Amino acid sequence: MNAPAAPSHFLPEHQRDVPAALVDALKARFGANCSTAMAVREQHGRDESAFLAPPPAAVVFAERTRDVADAVKLAGEYDAPVIPFGVGSSLEGHLLAVQGGISVDVSRMNQVLSVNAEDLTVTVQPGVTRKQLNEEIKSTGLFFPIDPGADATLGGMSATRASGTNAVRYGTMRENVLSLEVVTAAGEVIRTGTRAKKSSAGYDLTRLFVGSEGTLGVITEVTVRLYPLPEAISAAICSFPSIEAAVRTTIQIIQLGVPIARVELVDHNTVRMVNAHSKLGLREEPMLLMEFHGSPSGLKEQAELVQEIAADHGGNAFQWASTPEERTRLWTARHNAYFAAIQSKPGCRAISTDTCVPISRLADCLLDSVKEADDSGLPYFLVGHVGDGNFHFGYLLDPDIPQEREIAENLNRQLVARALSLGGTCTGEHGVGLHKMEFLVTETGAGAVDMMRTIKRALDPKNIMNPGKIFSI
Amino acid sequence: MNAPAAPSHFLPEHQRDVPAALVDALKARFGANCSTAMAVREQHGRDESAFLAPPPAAVVFAERTRDVADAVKLAGEYDAPVIPFGVGSSLEGHLLAVQGGISVDVSRMNQVLSVNAEDLTVTVQPGVTRKQLNEEIKSTGLFFPIDPGADATLGGMSATRASGTNAVRYGTMRENVLSLEVVTAAGEVIRTGTRAKKSSAGYDLTRLFVGSEGTLGVITEVTVRLYPLPEAISAAICSFPSIEAAVRTTIQIIQLGVPIARVELVDHNTVRMVNAHSKLGLREEPMLLMEFHGSPSGLKEQAELVQEIAADHGGNAFQWASTPEERTRLWTARHNAYFAAIQSKPGCRAISTDTCVPISRLADCLLDSVKEADDSGLPYFLVGHVGDGNFHFGYLLDPDIPQEREIAENLNRQLVARALSLGGTCTGEHGVGLHKMEFLVTETGAGAVDMMRTIKRALDPKNIMNPGKIFSI
Repeated sequence: MNAPAAPSHFLPEHQRDVPAALVDALKARFGANCSTAMAVREQHGRDESAFLAPPPAAVVFAERTRDVADAVKLAGEYDAPVIPFGVGSSLEGHLLAVQGGISVDVSRMNQVLSVNAEDLTVTVQPGVTRKQLNEEIKSTGLFFPIDPGADATLGGMSATRASGTNAVRYGTMRENVLSLEVVTAAGEVIRTGTRAKKSSAGYDLTRLFVGSEGTLGVITEVTVRLYPLPEAISAAICSFPSIEAAVRTTIQIIQLGVPIARVELVDHNTVRMVNAHSKLGLREEPMLLMEFHGSPSGLKEQAELVQEIAADHGGNAFQWASTPEERTRLWTARHNAYFAAIQSKPGCRAISTDTCVPISRLADCLLDSVKEADDSGLPYFLVGHVGDGNFHFGYLLDPDIPQEREIAENLNRQLVARALSLGGTCTGEHGVGLHKMEFLVTETGAGAVDMMRTIKRALDPKNIMNPGKIFSI
Repeated sequence: MNAPAAPSHFLPEHQRDVPAALVDALKARFGANCSTAMAVREQHGRDESAFLAPPPAAVVFAERTRDVADAVKLAGEYDAPVIPFGVGSSLEGHLLAVQGGISVDVSRMNQVLSVNAEDLTVTVQPGVTRKQLNEEIKSTGLFFPIDPGADATLGGMSATRASGTNAVRYGTMRENVLSLEVVTAAGEVIRTGTRAKKSSAGYDLTRLFVGSEGTLGVITEVTVRLYPLPEAISAAICSFPSIEAAVRTTIQIIQLGVPIARVELVDHNTVRMVNAHSKLGLREEPMLLMEFHGSPSGLKEQAELVQEIAADHGGNAFQWASTPEERTRLWTARHNAYFAAIQSKPGCRAISTDTCVPISRLADCLLDSVKEADDSGLPYFLVGHVGDGNFHFGYLLDPDIPQEREIAENLNRQLVARALSLGGTCTGEHGVGLHKMEFLVTETGAGAVDMMRTIKRALDPKNIMNPGKIFSI
């Protein structure tokens, strides 16, 4: 999901002072690579979330790890917050300077440093985006499967523990980051692991930084796993008489251990929006989009099994595609869902949800929430990485009508409460950021959040690394 | 590997005092479940490693989470170390009371708490062993793949980030633990995650505790992933003219993305020992043992491809098995390797290594180390989870000849240095414990170890949780 959401005002707890002496020191160190132009600051003071805060006092464009380390050290001398910035695609307010401070933009650190095709690994700078990476490794016969909606940077994807449509088969950033280079809050450079596929060598610092949302340090290098391009790929869409039928089909596919690469839900509302937007002429029914990776005979086995399961649940009108062009056509509905939805209600913004539940509880979680959304009268779209139990409602609201925002936030709260009661999480892939701090406490308990806060205080005693995100501190 | 190693004396930095008042308080709280009998203390003061230290002052047999919490709280009041104990199968000295203290035995916490077959998850108490778990879930059609040599507990396997022969396909404890319940150093009970398959909800406390070797808290519940039993399984052994040929075959299998479930190396030395021990009549050449999981046609594809690759490297004498009985027979060589080796040199003990390197460097790492071991004159066995780049030498030494221990430790040091220079790790699956602290610093750098130490100090300010393991503190 890459959904600009409804704007709202976020009240920072306190704006910390960024003294002129720090800005002077940054300008002296970085020259033209340190900007205080308002347009640059404003661009770095927002993301795709609904939140607003005053922009950072300065933006440093880092070109190497040493730049990041120097910027962090200087900021530390003046107790000023440091907010790492990639392409600004966070959905949860991660990039906002809610306590003031400076933005460290790593988008110019965009080199693929070493491709180890034989080991199925690659090491990149944090500003490399996922599409750039796949473009640059095309000739190796390998690919990097993790695909959040935005063409995000590998640094940002690591920081938010991102996933996307391929996670059902290939896992998330949690499973696919092998090692990181990190600049700590003290401005030191450390490496969190090796390129070995497995290791029992001490605390798992890699996994501690993956998902830490910039609050423990700045990621300056990322080593990830790659996968051989499948021998064959085929995609299919299938319509269902109800969301329940589509979801029950998904549950059975997963429970039977079918190694499906993607299984995405688009609800009938959203199909209607996409038809209006892209003239696709799809049946205006809930739809699953599926992709299979493997050998030709493996694909055939998977396809036969999935068609049987779908037929048992009333699934019909299977359309198959095996060329890249046909696949792209089939996936149009999924890819255009957001834009089609936004255009269906002129001037609207979207508030998006991100719950994830154990697959057996997916129908319970989803169906009751659909009913609540329908009853609210607020238009919405619904798409989901249902194979993982993760889905996103996008509530469409008029930013000038506060009541609509209230309805949307209420729907989200009800949905999160339901997901947690079913053994799920408030965020499958977007992160906590500013929006889900209260949910995190409910989900994991005050004791676990206290442990996170204790780790944060120990590793960042001056609280300069992206403060005010994940938990209040 | 489950290899009782050569005994040696470990000099504790300092034995901390366990006051009689603490022992009295434990006896008052736990009655007969607190033992100070020397035999019980001694049994809990050693593991399968080469190290010796004075036994713990008392052993508490915990029957529920509350017991663990109370024991930790009482120990904390007296600043006494707490060492969690499962079945005692650590290879690295994790269970030794090097700074004194008490042992908290969780082996009676051995209930499978909830099987969620529909979600492919199970929640168990920490004293459940891997074989017990698979026995108890047999009727569900699911299995838990992680299989270190010993029939270890899920708590211990989590604490050491264990893996085994199936990791090449199913991952290690890192990938397969979904959530933990933990008693912290303050005696509080926290939960580190939910049963959702993925989550971006705050710091990854689950992965922080997986591999923390008891130094951050006591694991009191473990939720892990399960997998559908494969539709078909077939196993094969194949002999090679050289270790290099076997290793190059493995590398190619992995690089081509063959979804092999197991690929284990047994070298010609070890085959000879196993033949002598079990009268197997195997060709006394390096051997790969492989297992394939999937649909019947998928197995056929994998088998054909692997046979082609092996033939290219001179692999021959393929023997296939598809019934459980035949598979067991083929795997005898692997399973009996340790005992066969020990019996080949009466009275000997083994010192085992655990390096893991990126697959492309496996031949470089292994072949030079074989040469060094051959040149040393010390007998050894060599087995490996080569599909992951992980292998174990077991140097066989006479415990009464100090020079042999020195040779073995030297060989290990050379091997680790080589693995690190090739981008690998000193420990693929056994953990750091007492034996690899110096290697950890070389591997990950002083800065990263300092970060681990900072986390330890923050979460365990009295340094009572299994102190003196992973790093000196």
